[in-house]
Amino acid sequence: MMLKELREKVYEANMDLPKHGLVVFTWGNASEIDRDKGLFVIKPSGVDYDKLTPESMVVCDLDGNVVEGDLNPSSDTATHAYLYRTWEQVGGIVHTHSAAATAWAQAGRSIPCYGTTQADYFYGEVPCMRGLTKEEIEEAYELNTGKVIVEGFGGMDPMAQPGCLVRNHGPFTWGKDAAAAVYHAVVVEEVAKMSRDTEMLCTAAGIRLDDAKAPQYLLDKHYSRKHGPNAYYGQK
Amino acid sequence: MMLKELREKVYEANMDLPKHGLVVFTWGNASEIDRDKGLFVIKPSGVDYDKLTPESMVVCDLDGNVVEGDLNPSSDTATHAYLYRTWEQVGGIVHTHSAAATAWAQAGRSIPCYGTTQADYFYGEVPCMRGLTKEEIEEAYELNTGKVIVEGFGGMDPMAQPGCLVRNHGPFTWGKDAAAAVYHAVVVEEVAKMSRDTEMLCTAAGIRLDDAKAPQYLLDKHYSRKHGPNAYYGQK
Amino acid sequence: MMLKELREKVYEANMDLPKHGLVVFTWGNASEIDRDKGLFVIKPSGVDYDKLTPESMVVCDLDGNVVEGDLNPSSDTATHAYLYRTWEQVGGIVHTHSAAATAWAQAGRSIPCYGTTQADYFYGEVPCMRGLTKEEIEEAYELNTGKVIVEGFGGMDPMAQPGCLVRNHGPFTWGKDAAAAVYHAVVVEEVAKMSRDTEMLCTAAGIRLDDAKAPQYLLDKHYSRKHGPNAYYGQK
Amino acid sequence: MMLKELREKVYEANMDLPKHGLVVFTWGNASEIDRDKGLFVIKPSGVDYDKLTPESMVVCDLDGNVVEGDLNPSSDTATHAYLYRTWEQVGGIVHTHSAAATAWAQAGRSIPCYGTTQADYFYGEVPCMRGLTKEEIEEAYELNTGKVIVEGFGGMDPMAQPGCLVRNHGPFTWGKDAAAAVYHAVVVEEVAKMSRDTEMLCTAAGIRLDDAKAPQYLLDKHYSRKHGPNAYYGQK
Repeated sequence: MMLKELREKVYEANMDLPKHGLVVFTWGNASEIDRDKGLFVIKPSGVDYDKLTPESMVVCDLDGNVVEGDLNPSSDTATHAYLYRTWEQVGGIVHTHSAAATAWAQAGRSIPCYGTTQADYFYGEVPCMRGLTKEEIEEAYELNTGKVIVEGFGGMDPMAQPGCLVRNHGPFTWGKDAAAAVYHAVVVEEVAKMSRDTEMLCTAAGIRLDDAKAPQYLLDKHYSRKHGPNAYYGQK
Repeated sequence: MMLKELREKVYEANMDLPKHGLVVFTWGNASEIDRDKGLFVIKPSGVDYDKLTPESMVVCDLDGNVVEGDLNPSSDTATHAYLYRTWEQVGGIVHTHSAAATAWAQAGRSIPCYGTTQADYFYGEVPCMRGLTKEEIEEAYELNTGKVIVEGFGGMDPMAQPGCLVRNHGPFTWGKDAAAAVYHAVVVEEVAKMSRDTEMLCTAAGIRLDDAKAPQYLLDKHYSRKHGPNAYYGQK
Repeated sequence: MMLKELREKVYEANMDLPKHGLVVFTWGNASEIDRDKGLFVIKPSGVDYDKLTPESMVVCDLDGNVVEGDLNPSSDTATHAYLYRTWEQVGGIVHTHSAAATAWAQAGRSIPCYGTTQADYFYGEVPCMRGLTKEEIEEAYELNTGKVIVEGFGGMDPMAQPGCLVRNHGPFTWGKDAAAAVYHAVVVEEVAKMSRDTEMLCTAAGIRLDDAKAPQYLLDKHYSRKHGPNAYYGQK
Repeated sequence: MMLKELREKVYEANMDLPKHGLVVFTWGNASEIDRDKGLFVIKPSGVDYDKLTPESMVVCDLDGNVVEGDLNPSSDTATHAYLYRTWEQVGGIVHTHSAAATAWAQAGRSIPCYGTTQADYFYGEVPCMRGLTKEEIEEAYELNTGKVIVEGFGGMDPMAQPGCLVRNHGPFTWGKDAAAAVYHAVVVEEVAKMSRDTEMLCTAAGIRLDDAKAPQYLLDKHYSRKHGPNAYYGQK
């Protein structure tokens, strides 16, 4: 069996999704890529989390074709594959329907950066992508979901804003590996809750939402505290 | 003892309700029908979940009369019976007072389809039924609850929208068996939470609720991805 | 040691409060009365739930004086005592600061009856009492809390509306014994959540709150389904 | 190894933060000071809670320099040190990003005192500090966070209002030791939830927020019931 260690990591990342309260039933998936081999491992489609095993994970190539595995891969496989093809820095991807983040996606709204919890991981907002057109959905839904994400990022660095919301759908996050993508999925859900409540409290007191946004220099500080050459958070 | 296997299934379905956080105390019930025998099995009325056993389940005929069992059946038995009599495709039914869905029912509002989480299971909104009249309530409350549901569905396919809200009361869901009805009860509670928050976020930002609704072609895609001849979600 | 069985029941009722998520730390108390002896048993003040035992419960007379026990009784003892003295039907009392119910108390609002979840236990709203005056607070705070509750009930039957909110404070509930008072404390917290969300959903859609209220005939039906000579919910 | 007992206490306080649902991942820290030695013990930076041990805690002097420990101390160490230097009554400090309290901090709002849950521990509001300037952030972010807190307190007694919100950031709480600071962190999160909902309920019913505030004499009563020479809550 191929990629034994990677299967193990992807299995663990998938199991962490319900543990963090991010998925009910089978509503989520995690993958990780082996860049040397050009293959990624992903959750099988519609299989209960308590029946998952490292062996049931599916190995795909960068076109999303199954290379090893008896089960169908996640129905979102073409989205994962397109992001891996386009963004070479990305090592792991997660998709969920976590409730608070999905509410922002359903409202068609980016999550503004209201504070340091978000600024520690996102250099600005968690951007919400445009909706897919009828043609994009009918032609190649999952592939075009990936294309809309990449289009939406334009000049933004996907490693500095490691996730987004797909309109009327839910969050996608990524990182250097599957564990980092899971971590960012938790961050997005937490800030989705906090920022929803921030807006309720602003509205109740007549504060303009723009006035609650974290200033740019706070974003700069928090991001650089955890990333780049002068980072000083955590251990060496 | 009759219908031993079915009693076991209905027992498991009932036990899944508190496990999914859908009921407190005895505020919920699940049933499943044996179409060949024309009998359904349902939870006894007002019995604590931790005292339930497969043997304590009650067997009823399609008029809601007890055929086997020492305990009174759920007080909602006449509603279950009417739905089984009218909708031959339905194999299992669940009723709960899950908090988020009940809030929509109390507001007298259908849950609009704002995204794919709902579109994967509901081909459109989760419809809210009209309130029962004074006469309907006094004459035959539970039977008329079933009649109001069927009336409210009009031409809609109950298998394409496997649940509804009863005004000032709470959600009823159904499916091919009791387990599917439980699944749809979880779906309704999850989308009730998400869509409540979607509306808060729209209001805070001055977005019209209608503009947040998922377009029809997205509904078509997600529903057909999981249902019908071209379904490709999950395993064969 | 006196009232061994009653101590056990009151201990269990108190332990159920954190189990149902109604209290953090020591922010709650339950009591039950032995009407024949004219004595009630109550939680000691400020003692952690994981250090409680049946033996540490405190026995008080109807004036709130300690009859047996080494520890101080709950600081709310005078409120319990006054309610027992005034309402002879009441057998158990619970006070908590459960979050959703306390929010209504802090807003100074009664919880309107928007649906059957509340109507099954409360024959109408969960009433919010007026605030205590400066003089009432300074003179005999806990005793006067009881007086304000009784005053607020006026002609209402405390067994038909087995709880209330004390303004700027939190919920008090009661019943035939301590277990029933705990049950009603859970009901109040659940309907506090549901009805808060009901109002958010009404506001978002421009529905008047009054139009969401359950009609009187629905209240009559649900209440009589569980109470009185024609009750048919549950087992005989 | 120095301060063995204090390391144990600080370790326990840190472990209590995720247990109370106040932190995810490593987003929080607790410390406690030994006033005689002029040293405080604090959580190491960015270390998972399930890998913490009493031995991995870091000992710092009042300037925030590491005196003993192989790991970097919390990135917020300079804030803790400044508060210990300035407020001699403070024995323990906690910082978290707990969701409800952080929402208030992100809205830039103090939590008004709407009821007795808050009044039992805070003699008035949970104050929100002004945001740091660009210069303060760039020069010495964590030190200046401490300075802004002390500035914001002005004449207020930090032991009578044992916590605050740092704008666009989150709550800091304190007390006579680390356990008391954890306790107050729980209080702040609970009242943050309650008071958010209080405001939603006031808004829905057209009640002015100011009219929901607890009157000063209620604050006086509840605070003095638990603090000072006439306290009568709890055991002697």
